[in-house]
Amino acid sequence: MIVILKPACSLRDKAHVVALIEARGLRVHLDRTEGSDWIGILGDGAPAVAPELRGHPAVLEVRALETPYALASRAFRSQPSVVRVGEVVLGGPEAIVMAGPCAVESEEQIFATARAVAAAGARILRGGAFKPRTSPYSFQGLGAQGLRLLAAAGREHGLPVVTEVVAPEDVPLVAEHADVLQIGARNMQNFRLLQCVGETQKPVLLKRGMVATLEELLLAAEYILATGDPDVILCERGIRTFGRETRNTLDVAAIPLLKARSHLPVIADPSHGTGVRALVRPLARAALAAGADGLLIEVHPDPASALSDGPQSLSFDGFAQLMRELGPVAASVGRQLGEGAGGGQ
Amino acid sequence: MIVILKPACSLRDKAHVVALIEARGLRVHLDRTEGSDWIGILGDGAPAVAPELRGHPAVLEVRALETPYALASRAFRSQPSVVRVGEVVLGGPEAIVMAGPCAVESEEQIFATARAVAAAGARILRGGAFKPRTSPYSFQGLGAQGLRLLAAAGREHGLPVVTEVVAPEDVPLVAEHADVLQIGARNMQNFRLLQCVGETQKPVLLKRGMVATLEELLLAAEYILATGDPDVILCERGIRTFGRETRNTLDVAAIPLLKARSHLPVIADPSHGTGVRALVRPLARAALAAGADGLLIEVHPDPASALSDGPQSLSFDGFAQLMRELGPVAASVGRQLGEGAGGGQ
Amino acid sequence: MIVILKPACSLRDKAHVVALIEARGLRVHLDRTEGSDWIGILGDGAPAVAPELRGHPAVLEVRALETPYALASRAFRSQPSVVRVGEVVLGGPEAIVMAGPCAVESEEQIFATARAVAAAGARILRGGAFKPRTSPYSFQGLGAQGLRLLAAAGREHGLPVVTEVVAPEDVPLVAEHADVLQIGARNMQNFRLLQCVGETQKPVLLKRGMVATLEELLLAAEYILATGDPDVILCERGIRTFGRETRNTLDVAAIPLLKARSHLPVIADPSHGTGVRALVRPLARAALAAGADGLLIEVHPDPASALSDGPQSLSFDGFAQLMRELGPVAASVGRQLGEGAGGGQ
Amino acid sequence: MIVILKPACSLRDKAHVVALIEARGLRVHLDRTEGSDWIGILGDGAPAVAPELRGHPAVLEVRALETPYALASRAFRSQPSVVRVGEVVLGGPEAIVMAGPCAVESEEQIFATARAVAAAGARILRGGAFKPRTSPYSFQGLGAQGLRLLAAAGREHGLPVVTEVVAPEDVPLVAEHADVLQIGARNMQNFRLLQCVGETQKPVLLKRGMVATLEELLLAAEYILATGDPDVILCERGIRTFGRETRNTLDVAAIPLLKARSHLPVIADPSHGTGVRALVRPLARAALAAGADGLLIEVHPDPASALSDGPQSLSFDGFAQLMRELGPVAASVGRQLGEGAGGGQ
Repeated sequence: MIVILKPACSLRDKAHVVALIEARGLRVHLDRTEGSDWIGILGDGAPAVAPELRGHPAVLEVRALETPYALASRAFRSQPSVVRVGEVVLGGPEAIVMAGPCAVESEEQIFATARAVAAAGARILRGGAFKPRTSPYSFQGLGAQGLRLLAAAGREHGLPVVTEVVAPEDVPLVAEHADVLQIGARNMQNFRLLQCVGETQKPVLLKRGMVATLEELLLAAEYILATGDPDVILCERGIRTFGRETRNTLDVAAIPLLKARSHLPVIADPSHGTGVRALVRPLARAALAAGADGLLIEVHPDPASALSDGPQSLSFDGFAQLMRELGPVAASVGRQLGEGAGGGQ
Repeated sequence: MIVILKPACSLRDKAHVVALIEARGLRVHLDRTEGSDWIGILGDGAPAVAPELRGHPAVLEVRALETPYALASRAFRSQPSVVRVGEVVLGGPEAIVMAGPCAVESEEQIFATARAVAAAGARILRGGAFKPRTSPYSFQGLGAQGLRLLAAAGREHGLPVVTEVVAPEDVPLVAEHADVLQIGARNMQNFRLLQCVGETQKPVLLKRGMVATLEELLLAAEYILATGDPDVILCERGIRTFGRETRNTLDVAAIPLLKARSHLPVIADPSHGTGVRALVRPLARAALAAGADGLLIEVHPDPASALSDGPQSLSFDGFAQLMRELGPVAASVGRQLGEGAGGGQ
Repeated sequence: MIVILKPACSLRDKAHVVALIEARGLRVHLDRTEGSDWIGILGDGAPAVAPELRGHPAVLEVRALETPYALASRAFRSQPSVVRVGEVVLGGPEAIVMAGPCAVESEEQIFATARAVAAAGARILRGGAFKPRTSPYSFQGLGAQGLRLLAAAGREHGLPVVTEVVAPEDVPLVAEHADVLQIGARNMQNFRLLQCVGETQKPVLLKRGMVATLEELLLAAEYILATGDPDVILCERGIRTFGRETRNTLDVAAIPLLKARSHLPVIADPSHGTGVRALVRPLARAALAAGADGLLIEVHPDPASALSDGPQSLSFDGFAQLMRELGPVAASVGRQLGEGAGGGQ
Repeated sequence: MIVILKPACSLRDKAHVVALIEARGLRVHLDRTEGSDWIGILGDGAPAVAPELRGHPAVLEVRALETPYALASRAFRSQPSVVRVGEVVLGGPEAIVMAGPCAVESEEQIFATARAVAAAGARILRGGAFKPRTSPYSFQGLGAQGLRLLAAAGREHGLPVVTEVVAPEDVPLVAEHADVLQIGARNMQNFRLLQCVGETQKPVLLKRGMVATLEELLLAAEYILATGDPDVILCERGIRTFGRETRNTLDVAAIPLLKARSHLPVIADPSHGTGVRALVRPLARAALAAGADGLLIEVHPDPASALSDGPQSLSFDGFAQLMRELGPVAASVGRQLGEGAGGGQ
């Protein structure tokens, strides 16, 4: 529910309205957009307080939300928001490519990959240190050592880094090394973890769960936003369907739908979204053409020997080719691609 | 199974090999590609005849197919095939847009639509005369009268026409008026109907069923190809998933996958693929960027009053805007868009 | 929409109300249940005629339907309806097992199977003569010869027979031999075929499509019922989901849901519903426990050599064991099982 | 991989074999079944050590596993295992019903429910204290206070209690009060949480994720088993499909499939599995008939006022009726139902 205050509303009146709401056990979000001061009311019991607010002399209008999420909605912020990661801006005119290996495996591997993806035009380095693996017997990542290697490789090539965090107790350590904290698809509804990453106030890359509706994804984002962290990037990474010919089905329509319902930046992951190397390039082009603000791409020096997700990883050459292809596609929808992209250096 | 003949194979030897295969109750497909004469063996019992053929003096090689479909496969024809519809060529350098109303409703409606979509760059006119409707009480199309109106509107604006056929007994009538016969998603596995449309030897637009795997789609195409009709166009039109926020989930990855497995042209239908007007433009762009050979788009003079599928139909203005957007996207992947497209006249 | 007439309504008044409805291009269904005469209005435009009817002196009440289907709904017939097939009654106190091979393969095979399933307690013999096969190169059934063999085998063992019909032009032939016409899952929305089988006025076994909602299934039933054929049996046969460990997912909840929304009998097909022989018995028990009026079971003298669906077919011993297990389960939910069941007779 | 030792193998030889395996960085599981000592090798690298073991004089046989999970498989333990919770035995001849509210809401509510479900024959009391809710603004459970109330209510009526744990940091607190720790569907692949609950060595109720394959579920169980905790109960709770007429689709076939692949007890949750009160009874009957070892049922004193999941909760009367119906169904498949079942004995 949103309470729009009268233009002449005094600070005292505003405080009074807030007190009135909080007395009902509800939380407030104060904001000002398009020339109006307004108060967002967060919590299930909002409708009960509406009649009293409607009668208050400082209140211009009380408006119900059409969505169960509030902070993530266009109703709360009608203009697209941007997320800044160092000098990189997500949600602006530039389409941002984040690239790197599924898992950090060694110093040599991550430094070589960082160099290659930076040269081809990637703007953020990805790499997993804590890997959620379906089997307890699979390689689970290098942990703290992987984090340090990733951060060092990013620094050397001027790339901020994004990496996944899988448990609340790891959040402080990961936040120390990473510029963006990633929540994986399996943890999209690990609500305690969402709150913990929000509390770091760092940018969060939130991947859609394998069968999450868009409303569920936006409610997961709301868990983070409600901690006061405004910097959430949504990621479509493929849904699980009856299809057996790809690992997942990349739901390209989710990209424009999320951008219509929410002000948050939206990127796509065609590597997990297909699970098939030969499909990464066409689906990356499709995602940009549909309006994605960026892409997350798996790249490995030697995909055949990767410890995880080899079948969907691009080689350095494959990634460079992808970036050359993406430049014209980005331009065709009015976007630029990373400085080094498209052979345009 | 494919039998590749020796370069010096005489016509008599070839006839002998064919007779040997047919004696087992199998059918043959004779072809010549990349400088070699070869014989495709159609039928379940193909492996049983292989040993005898391997020993035949005219035979260079006997190769098993990796797929249950043969004529539709890249193994049978390694180069993309094109389907000609009058002067329009599907599967070539030009991306072909087919547009028109879900259903032909009146002379005025279909002529106005034909004029508008031709002006904007569409190359083929679509329109339903026999509509398969979920409820027996819904509008089922104008039937024969609708066919005549559609054909007349197409002629007036120089557009070949495509329309759906829903039952074997209607095939002769529909074939008389239509340039391309469409098999709808619900009939993808109506095998008798597939054989009937194949026997007309006209181009067929085959839509993927709502939960058909790509293998099932290619086997449905095989039913048509096995009648001797080589002109099949495949169409991705959205699959049914858990998602409730769109009518279907457009499986964009199916486009490059089908093109990799088959030589047949592949188009996409973002209107049914999403069911949401605001998503038609971004998904149309995505499909072209992923490599589609064309698009099927619903356009109506007044979508709000359409007798079917209004919520996903574009207005004339919306369609013109789509075509302007598609031009640069097509160019970014090395394709041209219809002559009148993209303001490029 | 349902128009309930006043108790004292004369025949002339009734005729007047009917004429008034038909003048709007709508169709009527006249019926009498629970002591009241009523008129069902079939067609999209029903709401438009409601105000005039409400003011008519012979009309007690005009009631809107909550469902898009009418004849299939509980609103039209609040008590369960039964379908009689010779002496067999579907939808009554006895749970009816229909059993037999996926396809009729030979005289020996179908006669042996008929004898075995009759001895074990099956009440209807199933067997395919026209098989819809995914590949054009697979065995497509014995056709007319298969029909004759099936009917003869059924006659010899006192079992009515059910078999699939796949195209409108085959309906007269199939209707000549079969006691129940089956519409397969792939043809659930082959609307022309639904109308053709309805016009035979014979009992129809309508299988749910692979991703049909229950509303779509009931609308398909409505196509048959609207021809004047009241004898439709619904069949849950498994839906296609992300699951890869069974051929389909038997949606057991569909059984009680269909029975709550419709008065039609509902059976289940655990053979296609799982595609795994070892799961047929537990799922058959589950379906009966959930309230199914019957079961459709694939049985073959030698499943390993079956020309189709061998992996899900029971042997004669397996079927006899199933029937012994089903007796107590049927009893536990207040049903009886076929006379010969339980090995006891 | 499993290493079966020769009958005469000395302890020294056995230790030698173990050392040889551990030297490769692999873990071992020592066991004895059906008269043989064997060593399970846990870890990805198992195949590499096989040749050396095959040549070892103490080794009778080295057998590869057909499944990626080991401890959960029938290959590791061919007989069903039972899980004891106080005096209650899961996986034995008695079918165990666990019942109670979705969330503990008040002392009055949980004590009244415990009394009612105990009287009707439930053997374990369920109730949520930490609730994972899709929206951050929904009621999230009473936390520690809810745990204490639940445990007290269970004690008063002689029922062990099961409750969900949602984060690693809560595990010690929950383990202090609960007899069985529940992992919810959203957390099935929260691998850190699985390890934490395993380390308590208490029984764990592991719910299948919304689109988890059975292999993924068994690998999640393997995470718990690999900590040394043998007491895992699997729970089918409905999968997410295209279906829109129920909240989830209860995959009844998963019950016999899981029991065939694993020795672990399997229960079903028809409350979440359907989300519709009227379907809980028929699906509970179906699950038992399919071989479930127990059921998890939501019961609330006043479902209409429940703070969560009201639409799928049974009233006390509804639950008593369910238990009366379940008695004969359990008997029909050779199981008994809880002492108090079937009318309050």
